[in-house]
Amino acid sequence: MSVMYTGALQDLMDELGALPGIGPKSAQRIALHILGADPESVKRLTTALTVVKEKVKFCTTCGNVTEEEHCAICLDTRREQHLLCVVEEAKDVAAIERTRSFRGRYHVLGGAIDPINGIGPDQLRIRELMSRLADGTVKEVIIATDPNVEGEATAAYLARMLSTLEIPTSRLASGLPVGGDLEYADEVTLGRAFEGRRLI
Amino acid sequence: MSVMYTGALQDLMDELGALPGIGPKSAQRIALHILGADPESVKRLTTALTVVKEKVKFCTTCGNVTEEEHCAICLDTRREQHLLCVVEEAKDVAAIERTRSFRGRYHVLGGAIDPINGIGPDQLRIRELMSRLADGTVKEVIIATDPNVEGEATAAYLARMLSTLEIPTSRLASGLPVGGDLEYADEVTLGRAFEGRRLI
Repeated sequence: MSVMYTGALQDLMDELGALPGIGPKSAQRIALHILGADPESVKRLTTALTVVKEKVKFCTTCGNVTEEEHCAICLDTRREQHLLCVVEEAKDVAAIERTRSFRGRYHVLGGAIDPINGIGPDQLRIRELMSRLADGTVKEVIIATDPNVEGEATAAYLARMLSTLEIPTSRLASGLPVGGDLEYADEVTLGRAFEGRRLI
Repeated sequence: MSVMYTGALQDLMDELGALPGIGPKSAQRIALHILGADPESVKRLTTALTVVKEKVKFCTTCGNVTEEEHCAICLDTRREQHLLCVVEEAKDVAAIERTRSFRGRYHVLGGAIDPINGIGPDQLRIRELMSRLADGTVKEVIIATDPNVEGEATAAYLARMLSTLEIPTSRLASGLPVGGDLEYADEVTLGRAFEGRRLI
């Protein structure tokens, strides 16, 4: 793909291509769009990039994104203090908030246990979680790590840690996606759906 | 998708989401990647964006991208001067260069005739093409606009214009993609492949 472009345009394609989910074709398309775009809109993009790096940080309590010391959810006194949902990333907080079905607070681990990539419990915000739970305010923990190998390993590790504190701990249900087709479900998901079946 | 994010992070997602091919999910993924990325790499990205807008412009002869008055292809004396390939966009020049099967020069129209979006012949670099052909250097024109409605309309318009100059004009072949499967070809492509069949 690199044939033909040189200099500044190739530099831009290289930088864009380093972003997650942007392949060489998308990088080319975006770079040529930038070239023809209104200078004001490019200025807005570069400003937005710079401002995010300057202003946005992580909530010192829960690890969610915020521009202040604490995030809006931790500061919201209407949120239930005794219910804590543990997630891998800030984007999981956003996803759960969109469901509007959880009114407790969050704890963002900053990833999942993944030994192949050198991420163990010490690289995650697990120590912060344990000290947060120490004062007895939280009465229930919901582990909402991803339903994949790393997420399950993290959930199992957390469940073991939390069992010492005697706080009831649950894991999000696995099963068939709502609106999906049974015949297209993979066998692991379908197996979980059987295990987790409920009386009606 | 916009629930939950506020301030600088949402601004960045909005700007990213305005780029071609970037949906809300990708915008979120990239914005959160930027948040956690090495500040040096974000600086390189914003610099690359700014430099492209400052330095890269269009070749005054052919309309291809360049950082100089003329592009590298127009300046290359080894390229055949009598053969001209007309394309819609600079990225089409890059695509044809990668084939290494064309040694002539290019003329970039800057788009295709698309009345619905208000693009007529006057919005394209057709006047520049006609004055370029006026001195008789070019002996053959290859029209390589896209094989879609707008590209075909543009090719038909150009063919009519060029017929007055008596310069032999051809259009790239339509047919089955190499390495493709006949049964997956759409009927228009398969029809074109029949029309354009060649004796072996």
